[in-house]
Amino acid sequence: MNFQQKLQEIVKKNNSLLCVGLDPDLSKLPPHILKLDEPLFEFNKAIIDETKDLVCAFKANSAFYEAEGVRGIEQLKKTIQYVQKQYPEIPVILDAKRADIGNTSEQYAKYAFYFLGVDAITVNPYLGFDSIEPFLKRKDKGIIILCKTSNPGSSDFQDIHLGGVSGRIPREISSPEPLYMFVAKKNIEWNTIYGNCLMVVGATYPEELKKIRELTPDMTFLVPGIGSQGGNLEQTLKFGLTEEKSGLIINVGRAIIYASNGNDFSQKAKEEAIKLRDLINQFRN
Amino acid sequence: MNFQQKLQEIVKKNNSLLCVGLDPDLSKLPPHILKLDEPLFEFNKAIIDETKDLVCAFKANSAFYEAEGVRGIEQLKKTIQYVQKQYPEIPVILDAKRADIGNTSEQYAKYAFYFLGVDAITVNPYLGFDSIEPFLKRKDKGIIILCKTSNPGSSDFQDIHLGGVSGRIPREISSPEPLYMFVAKKNIEWNTIYGNCLMVVGATYPEELKKIRELTPDMTFLVPGIGSQGGNLEQTLKFGLTEEKSGLIINVGRAIIYASNGNDFSQKAKEEAIKLRDLINQFRN
Repeated sequence: MNFQQKLQEIVKKNNSLLCVGLDPDLSKLPPHILKLDEPLFEFNKAIIDETKDLVCAFKANSAFYEAEGVRGIEQLKKTIQYVQKQYPEIPVILDAKRADIGNTSEQYAKYAFYFLGVDAITVNPYLGFDSIEPFLKRKDKGIIILCKTSNPGSSDFQDIHLGGVSGRIPREISSPEPLYMFVAKKNIEWNTIYGNCLMVVGATYPEELKKIRELTPDMTFLVPGIGSQGGNLEQTLKFGLTEEKSGLIINVGRAIIYASNGNDFSQKAKEEAIKLRDLINQFRN
Repeated sequence: MNFQQKLQEIVKKNNSLLCVGLDPDLSKLPPHILKLDEPLFEFNKAIIDETKDLVCAFKANSAFYEAEGVRGIEQLKKTIQYVQKQYPEIPVILDAKRADIGNTSEQYAKYAFYFLGVDAITVNPYLGFDSIEPFLKRKDKGIIILCKTSNPGSSDFQDIHLGGVSGRIPREISSPEPLYMFVAKKNIEWNTIYGNCLMVVGATYPEELKKIRELTPDMTFLVPGIGSQGGNLEQTLKFGLTEEKSGLIINVGRAIIYASNGNDFSQKAKEEAIKLRDLINQFRN
C-alpha cells in the first residue's frame, strides 16, 4: 500500500484530517518527563497513545531531534518504530525540508526511507527538479514539496511576482504571477510522473491556499500554521477541502503537545486533539 | 576569532582557496577502509591528514552521514572534532542546506553549532528571512546562503525572471531579473546586519557568477561544481576573484577524495589537491 492509499484509509477510519506534530523541545517538556532516560521518546509515546484514534498522520520534525545530537536521532527513530509497531495504519511524515544536488539528495532519501523508514518527507524546491527526483523515485512514499510556507518571511521570495521568460531555454510565463504559484504548477506537473507528490501550503495564507486549490482539485496539501502560528482554520477548510471533503492534512504541533506542562500533558493533548478534529469535521459535513 | 577572520588567515597561511568536500559514500570507499569499524571517519581522517596544508576549509555534507543513520552522524562529529583538535586553524563547513520556520531553524542551528560545533553552515533561502535569522544571530559563524546552485535543475526556479511588484506590501523591482539575482541582493542586504553571510554560486554557471560578483565586490562565494560536475575553473576565477585575488572557497569533493580506490587513495587525493590548488593560484598571481 502506498502513502496516498494509507492516508485515505486512515482519514476514513479515524474520520480525521488532523495531524499531530511531534516536535518535542527539551525546554518545554513537563518536568517529570525530563527526568526520564529518553525524554523525547517518552513524551512522544504518551502523545501518540492518547491521540492515535484522532489523527490521519503523525509528523516529526527532524530538527528537534538533531538539536539533541545522536541521542535525539535515536529517539526519533524509536518514535517512528513505535508508531509502526503499535499503530501501523498511521502514516509518519518526516518534516525535514531537505534537498541538494542529485547524488546528495539520494543520501537524504536513504536517511528518511531506509534509516528512519518514514512514509513521507517534506522537501524544498529551490534547487529544482533533479534535487527532488531521488525522493520522487520512491513511488510508494509521499513527497511533500514546499509551496507557500506558513511563516512571515515566506513573502520574501515566494510572493515575488514573475514576468517575462525563464530559464536557459526561455519559456513564456503567460501572465505575471507570484513564485509560489509557479512552484505549485511545477509540483502539479511533477505529480503527474508517479502521483506521489503533495504540497505544503500554510494556513496563515488562506487566499493563497485558495488560489493553489483552484489549480488542482485533488492534490493533498500539508497545512501547517494552525495553533501557535495563528492560521485561520475556517478559511483553510473553506478554500482547501476537495470535493470529497478531504485533501488536507492539517498539522498542529505546539497547541496540542504543550496544552499542559503537568502530569496530565497527554490527557490535555488528547482533549485538544478531539476539539480540533471535531472543529475540522464540522466543516466537512 | 570569527569565521571570516579564520578563513582569511588560513587562505594566507596555506596560500589556498581550495576546500575539500568530505562526502564519503560507502559504495565508493576503498575496500580496505570498508573493513574498518568506522569507515567514514577513517577515510576522512586520512584525507584530512594529507590535505591539511593545501586547503582553506573542509566541507562535510550532512547527507552522506545521515544516510548511515546514528553511526554515520557519530562519525561526522568525530571528523569535525578531529579537525578541531589536530588542525584548529582550518574552518569546517557543514553543508546541510537547512531552513525552516524560525523556532525550528533554531533547532537546526543547535545541531550545527552546538552538537557538531562547525564554523559555518549552508542554508536554503526559500522560506525567507525569519528562517535564516536563527543562524544569522550566530555572529561568529559563517552563514552560507544558496544563491545559484551548480546542478542542472537550478534553472527551474532560480533562473525565472521576475517583474512587477512583490510581496504583500508591494515593492517595485526596477527591472526584470532572474530570481537568483534577487536572492543575491537579499543576501547582500542580510550581510549588512552582522557581516557573516556568504553565498553559494556554482562554477557550472560562470556567467551568472560574473553577474553576482558585479553586485558585491567583496562577499565570499562558496563555489561547488568543479570536478565531477564539470564546472569551468578558469572562468570561475576570472569572474569570481575579488580585487585581493580572494573571495572564493572552491569546493572539490569527488574528484579529490575518489582519485584512487586503492591503498594509495589519500596520497592520490593529496596529488589531486596540489594540482588544483596550484591551478587556482596561477590565476591569483
